[in-house]
Amino acid sequence: MLAAVIHGARDVRAEERPDPTILTPGDAVVRVVAACVCGSDLWSYRGVAPTHEPHPIGHELVGVVEELGDEVTSAKVGDFVIVPFSLSCGQCQACRAGFPSACDVVTFFGSPDRQGLPVDGAQGERVRIPLAQHSLFPVGLTEEEVEARGLVPHLLTLADVMSTGYHAAVSAHVGPGDVVAVVGDGAVGLSGVLAAKILGARRIVAMSRHEDRAALARRLGATDVVAERGAEAPAAVRALLDGDLADAALECVGTKESMDQALSVVRGGGRVGFVGVPNGGPELPVGRLFTRNLTVGGGMASARRYMEELLPRVLDGSIQPGAVFDLELPLAEVAEAYAAMDERRATKVLLRP
Amino acid sequence: MLAAVIHGARDVRAEERPDPTILTPGDAVVRVVAACVCGSDLWSYRGVAPTHEPHPIGHELVGVVEELGDEVTSAKVGDFVIVPFSLSCGQCQACRAGFPSACDVVTFFGSPDRQGLPVDGAQGERVRIPLAQHSLFPVGLTEEEVEARGLVPHLLTLADVMSTGYHAAVSAHVGPGDVVAVVGDGAVGLSGVLAAKILGARRIVAMSRHEDRAALARRLGATDVVAERGAEAPAAVRALLDGDLADAALECVGTKESMDQALSVVRGGGRVGFVGVPNGGPELPVGRLFTRNLTVGGGMASARRYMEELLPRVLDGSIQPGAVFDLELPLAEVAEAYAAMDERRATKVLLRP
Repeated sequence: MLAAVIHGARDVRAEERPDPTILTPGDAVVRVVAACVCGSDLWSYRGVAPTHEPHPIGHELVGVVEELGDEVTSAKVGDFVIVPFSLSCGQCQACRAGFPSACDVVTFFGSPDRQGLPVDGAQGERVRIPLAQHSLFPVGLTEEEVEARGLVPHLLTLADVMSTGYHAAVSAHVGPGDVVAVVGDGAVGLSGVLAAKILGARRIVAMSRHEDRAALARRLGATDVVAERGAEAPAAVRALLDGDLADAALECVGTKESMDQALSVVRGGGRVGFVGVPNGGPELPVGRLFTRNLTVGGGMASARRYMEELLPRVLDGSIQPGAVFDLELPLAEVAEAYAAMDERRATKVLLRP
Repeated sequence: MLAAVIHGARDVRAEERPDPTILTPGDAVVRVVAACVCGSDLWSYRGVAPTHEPHPIGHELVGVVEELGDEVTSAKVGDFVIVPFSLSCGQCQACRAGFPSACDVVTFFGSPDRQGLPVDGAQGERVRIPLAQHSLFPVGLTEEEVEARGLVPHLLTLADVMSTGYHAAVSAHVGPGDVVAVVGDGAVGLSGVLAAKILGARRIVAMSRHEDRAALARRLGATDVVAERGAEAPAAVRALLDGDLADAALECVGTKESMDQALSVVRGGGRVGFVGVPNGGPELPVGRLFTRNLTVGGGMASARRYMEELLPRVLDGSIQPGAVFDLELPLAEVAEAYAAMDERRATKVLLRP
């Protein structure tokens, strides 16, 4: 089969690899209908996270179940499924509490599972899915129905990006009437805007310097756009809000600067939900949290859990989270997909095997 | 009047000072009925926070209003009041949101106010209270009634220690059915145990090595006691909870070690409420929060807000937060009060002017 393999900085190739097979009774094999490139894939692509040896890459997919191990009863062969970016058991304390990304045996695409068996990347034609009983999420439609209704991009976002934006908003306890600032205008930040709207925010301030992304943020629910950064950001927010700051901020980048900005634009007692993968920045300033009574929470999204809340909204057309995709390419052109995102020619690229 | 003044490490003296007077129309003068010594006062007493010049000390009091500025209508002369440890305006965004300790003009005992006018310490016979309109909290009883019913110690805790324990629990979103671990067996930790019980925790694990404090923790609502610290703490909690960890932890100390311990005893997706004044430790490990999906929130307590929730419980006798006091001394013996707490001969000392 064809699959994306990263060899090093700015070197992602579509290559032939062996087809995956069932290796344990808890596995499934899924044929990928669509995958995509994540902002966090760019950390390896840019060499910020070094690639020590070539490995398959990608962690977002929708597809059709082709084979099932004997123990998997949560889906049938032929089901159209979303697979969350983190594979989880559904049984441990973290899973039961609704945090499958902190599962005791959490397993990620492109790395060996807990038994040391290989797991493919999602940017490929087929993937073995360990922990399939809890990780497969059938959408209740056939592949033909999904395609005919144009749902592929929207469903694909529930595997990661939309769920991650939603996790930022849930972690920041966004609720009706809140004023929410969103730091980051990438696909996660844009999803965070939509999530804040779903959760009832009264006013949503997208912090963006890019005209096209700001326009998309407005389409997804942003009521205001602030271009200022750094020390100027809180002043700009105050100017917008009659001297007030935001009740909550969503940190959707993962750098020291973006966290600082998120902390600076919320009021005393405010909440910051963070989902940007922390990228080597210093740690959280505990004295500043203490003095301003701030709460910071987040991490990897509970995608598997949020699918249950978000799928009905996608199916009834009330949200269109797939709006974050602005380029679609065949899997064979995966190198161009990464380059387009790296060079900010695309916000998020959908790949079709 | 007599008042406590700190001169340097392990040097607190009861001294004669001028009686305070009304200096602005927003002031009150309160005659102190009881004050006490806080764990955070020990940072200065031990020289961890250096004392550059002698200044009055103490920030917890109950008393009787003696004089009022022209603008203060929230209390009458003769009212028995609790005064929160942080004085606040009640008007700014943080106050309106319920976080008076993050007030735009927050003012503390023993330091000049925002106009540069002196504010006495609470460990004295009288105090000028700026921002009195929002900061005085009349309890609706006369001094004689309060004394006759033995309510002084209980009401005094609402000025800081009980409100601070409650803030830890509120910041950790403790709710019905939760398993809560409390790190710290000082007066704040003990108050945190009681707070977790008030908020409906199913199981409360007091982390204590001191037999007497563990016994008091059990009286206040702890269901279990764990003596282990450091790397052994989470294992001990797991042993107690059939392999699980706590849903939430209350960090009531303020050191790197106590925060580490709090983070280590909660499950994936768990919440840590912190109220220990951060004492020079390193910052919060953001990568660890991310990987385990933890939420950390807290700071200085919203004592003024919690009085409204906690006073009825004190008045109807359903809680006895004054149980944290195990020594009462006259103000003239304030040096012994500090020494007793410093040497852990007392958990918390009540002072009578």
